[in-house]
Amino acid sequence: MSQYTAPLADFRFVLDDVLDAQAQFARLGHADATPDVIDAVLEEAARFSGSVLAPLNAVGDQQGCRHDPATGDVTTPEGFKAAYAQYVDGGWPGLTAAPEHGGQGLPHLVGTVVSEMINGANLAWGNFPLLSHGAVEALRQHGQDWQREVFLKPLIEGRWTGTMCLTEPHCGTDLGLLRTRAEPVGDDAYAITGTKIFITAGEHDFTDNIIHLVLAKLPDAPAGAKGISLFVVPKFKVARDGSVGERNAVRCGSIEHKMGIKGSATCVMNFDGAQGWLVGEAHGGLKAMFTMMNSARLGVGLQGIGLSERAYQNALRYARERLQSRALSGPKRPDKPADPIIVHPDVRRMLLSVKALTEGSRMLAMHAGSLLDAASHADDAAERERAETLVSFLTPISKACQTEWGIENTYNALQCFGGHGYIAEHGMEQLARDARITTLYEGTTGIQALDLAGRKTASSRGAGLKLFLAEVEAFCAAHEGDGELAADIATLRAKCVEWSELTTGMLQAAAGNPDELGAASWDYLFYSGYVVLAYWWLRARAAARDSSMPAAFKDAKREAARFYFARILPRTLAHAEAIRAGAGPLMALDADSFGD
Amino acid sequence: MSQYTAPLADFRFVLDDVLDAQAQFARLGHADATPDVIDAVLEEAARFSGSVLAPLNAVGDQQGCRHDPATGDVTTPEGFKAAYAQYVDGGWPGLTAAPEHGGQGLPHLVGTVVSEMINGANLAWGNFPLLSHGAVEALRQHGQDWQREVFLKPLIEGRWTGTMCLTEPHCGTDLGLLRTRAEPVGDDAYAITGTKIFITAGEHDFTDNIIHLVLAKLPDAPAGAKGISLFVVPKFKVARDGSVGERNAVRCGSIEHKMGIKGSATCVMNFDGAQGWLVGEAHGGLKAMFTMMNSARLGVGLQGIGLSERAYQNALRYARERLQSRALSGPKRPDKPADPIIVHPDVRRMLLSVKALTEGSRMLAMHAGSLLDAASHADDAAERERAETLVSFLTPISKACQTEWGIENTYNALQCFGGHGYIAEHGMEQLARDARITTLYEGTTGIQALDLAGRKTASSRGAGLKLFLAEVEAFCAAHEGDGELAADIATLRAKCVEWSELTTGMLQAAAGNPDELGAASWDYLFYSGYVVLAYWWLRARAAARDSSMPAAFKDAKREAARFYFARILPRTLAHAEAIRAGAGPLMALDADSFGD
Repeated sequence: MSQYTAPLADFRFVLDDVLDAQAQFARLGHADATPDVIDAVLEEAARFSGSVLAPLNAVGDQQGCRHDPATGDVTTPEGFKAAYAQYVDGGWPGLTAAPEHGGQGLPHLVGTVVSEMINGANLAWGNFPLLSHGAVEALRQHGQDWQREVFLKPLIEGRWTGTMCLTEPHCGTDLGLLRTRAEPVGDDAYAITGTKIFITAGEHDFTDNIIHLVLAKLPDAPAGAKGISLFVVPKFKVARDGSVGERNAVRCGSIEHKMGIKGSATCVMNFDGAQGWLVGEAHGGLKAMFTMMNSARLGVGLQGIGLSERAYQNALRYARERLQSRALSGPKRPDKPADPIIVHPDVRRMLLSVKALTEGSRMLAMHAGSLLDAASHADDAAERERAETLVSFLTPISKACQTEWGIENTYNALQCFGGHGYIAEHGMEQLARDARITTLYEGTTGIQALDLAGRKTASSRGAGLKLFLAEVEAFCAAHEGDGELAADIATLRAKCVEWSELTTGMLQAAAGNPDELGAASWDYLFYSGYVVLAYWWLRARAAARDSSMPAAFKDAKREAARFYFARILPRTLAHAEAIRAGAGPLMALDADSFGD
Repeated sequence: MSQYTAPLADFRFVLDDVLDAQAQFARLGHADATPDVIDAVLEEAARFSGSVLAPLNAVGDQQGCRHDPATGDVTTPEGFKAAYAQYVDGGWPGLTAAPEHGGQGLPHLVGTVVSEMINGANLAWGNFPLLSHGAVEALRQHGQDWQREVFLKPLIEGRWTGTMCLTEPHCGTDLGLLRTRAEPVGDDAYAITGTKIFITAGEHDFTDNIIHLVLAKLPDAPAGAKGISLFVVPKFKVARDGSVGERNAVRCGSIEHKMGIKGSATCVMNFDGAQGWLVGEAHGGLKAMFTMMNSARLGVGLQGIGLSERAYQNALRYARERLQSRALSGPKRPDKPADPIIVHPDVRRMLLSVKALTEGSRMLAMHAGSLLDAASHADDAAERERAETLVSFLTPISKACQTEWGIENTYNALQCFGGHGYIAEHGMEQLARDARITTLYEGTTGIQALDLAGRKTASSRGAGLKLFLAEVEAFCAAHEGDGELAADIATLRAKCVEWSELTTGMLQAAAGNPDELGAASWDYLFYSGYVVLAYWWLRARAAARDSSMPAAFKDAKREAARFYFARILPRTLAHAEAIRAGAGPLMALDADSFGD
């Protein structure tokens, strides 16, 4: 059985030593986010995730959710509902929500940390509250006054949960194809009819009501993505005065049998003339959808980190306990029949690789959280815009890299166990199965790559990249002449120059042939991700040197940074070469000739 | 549900156009291996794997094996036993075994092709016959005359199956630690006592008897790996005259719950004073074990290819059928609501990547099969030794790379399905789960890497590498001045020079610090694998040009070769850089400082 303990020391290191979070909280007017409050929140989240959620992780995998075809009800695994009640009682659903809607108004940066803990403890369980955040954002930003009035408070208090109903059997990425219809039925209401699939937490037994945010087309909708509208469709009808009425015509038709996250209910939702109301403008659903999507993408990125952290903790414990063979350089524990496998260089390669990618990802994700705060709360409009542009640029990198690295990390951690990793007993194989969804939902890695290369780079003339490169250069310039960092600064600067050149090359090629953008996108995404992480490891190395953390912690940061630059960052060489190869080797073969 | 059709066209291309197999068969005296016979064998293997085994693949996953704790019996999934009966009736178990033991004496190269088909059709089922090959080899090479007389025929005819009982709860890689004891009980027999775990096909309902080959220690055994002996321990006792007697004291205590290959019985085997006989010399078990292990390692390498082929076929079908979004360069199917996703560059990247690694691996594996034939049957002792050295060098590369690529390939193929890949319905997630065992059993990837860098390179002064490089250079020299191949020849030659330099550098560093070998090993293994595959893709490109295969097939070979050189081979850049970084970044951190 795998275990999980929230990595509080590392969270504090990133908050205090790397990001200087308290200074930002003060600057942004988060008067409540004092060191004491933040500490208490982290401690309590660590307790809740470690002692309530973590033990339910294997239970969820073993029992899964159950669907009753007669009623459409979904029963969650034993203990899930009670844990959710504790979560609500603790006020967690509204941690970062605005106080005027019943939230606690704490910084997103703190919410990021808490989310990582929940995901590390129990990813499947974490999916139930996750999508409420997106629903809240969509209603807050695009909803009518009465909708905000009626829906936000119960969602933020966690008495209700929210969903995002986008995908249909024949369309996922290409939502312009969707067939769900919304017919006006008077009094500003609509009858929603259609089938949505892969609806996370579409049905469950946690709460009295479930608020679906549904993409559908109005009768006069233009074709394609420009004809999509967003509707709010509660499981139990809610009147404009907030009173809850009869069951709405929406039911869960079945749940999916999946590779992992078995404790999470993935529902087919049938809307059969269900009562709904328009959210935002008619045919303006795509914009509202991106509001939900961006929040969910950063959330899924945190799933990759949570799983990686849990995988690391368990692999490290095993590598210290498992005795097998002697160190090549001579016995390290002559008192034992063999040395612990952590003496072997290749086991260390796997462990350090997990550590470097996990802790690096954590800095990236927490930086994104701090940018969300600046985008919402900075006094200066220019700073808000800068933060918005930067977090928007970093979102596809965070989502895709953190989840792909999550798969690599759970792979390596399992590999440390040898054959024992493959059997259910140690819990490592569950982590690998659970991780596999994260590069698929909320936009596959390929979609993130297109988002980065297209919308976030080509369409914005590289605005996000320029801001990020300026931040890197500011750090490098500030540490000019720092002997310990000099070599890594030089490496990072060279990578930044190459990153700019690759970007220019990609955009120029794409101007002549649009396929060049798609052909470069995946390697461009990873090239970007590895350089971003190099920046964070450089900062971590500098921060660790001046930190008051214990010596062992600081040693580990220094060595993980060294490992990252020596052993991980060289992957950029392969990605750069692949980008330069262009679209030719991808596009020449006729689709009929790929095979029978 | 995923489907499988044996890729006969590609097998024939590699046999006829790449390897010129008929010429070798004739030279090695395989008079029976005429084109007609080979063709009939391939056709029949394709029929059996596609129509009998493939439909049972999902059944095996859903039902798994069942263990009766009262009797120790194991019941295999529905249809598995009947399929095995057909396999035996078809004479498949003895396909490549010597005619004097009841085999058909066909080349190993043909056996390699048949094994790939079985693995592509049903990996879990294929595990039952797989380990018989290793048992046969161990008995043939190391057994006493009466043991060969008594055991080989039923094993080769498939009336009995064999196992390899190596691992114990506290030892896998480090077999010197094993605790299973063998006490002499007179009449040349021994009483075997101990517990073995992870025993593939340790118990099942296919055959009347199961022949365990068991590592154990004699009372006077020296400590460590030099004290291991090999014993043959039948489930039902077998007398020297071949008559089968009462049940032996060996029972299956339980079966493992695993991530995948659920149709394969992974058994805990309890030996409770079971009757056994020494195979080979006392304390000489390690040598006999490597005989079994080498056969099993090449076999597991084929599992990676079989799964990759199946994954490719299904991903390709889906990518042609699934309509989603328009090509960036404009609609390709304006008659449809969207284009098939195979128009998108990143989907093509995934498909071509699977194709290039799968078909490249197939050439590598079939080459290894042809080397086994030369090692056994060449008239010239020098040729036999050359083949033996080369296949021994290539075995860790084949095993590790083909299985790691199998994981990458099933990953990419699943990814082509988006969220649909994650649900059980399409069968893609089973392929990914099944693939995950292949880098763990019969020696993890880390162990293969150490075998390559240590025993197969350092200990033999690079003899295998030199032979391989000479073969590459001979091909390059023979195609000097070939305009179409010139650029790739230059690239490959440069990689070969670098490969030699990296080898020398690694060995020199290791002379001063043995950890350098372990630190370089994993990246050295992959560097080697990618260069080996580049050689095969160069040969495939040349062979396709002159082949009589259809134009589409030849186009696909050319483009896959081009893709390989442009998009996959650059990974060597990252591996070379990591090797050059040395052991420092891996070894400096104290084991206690990796984390709490």
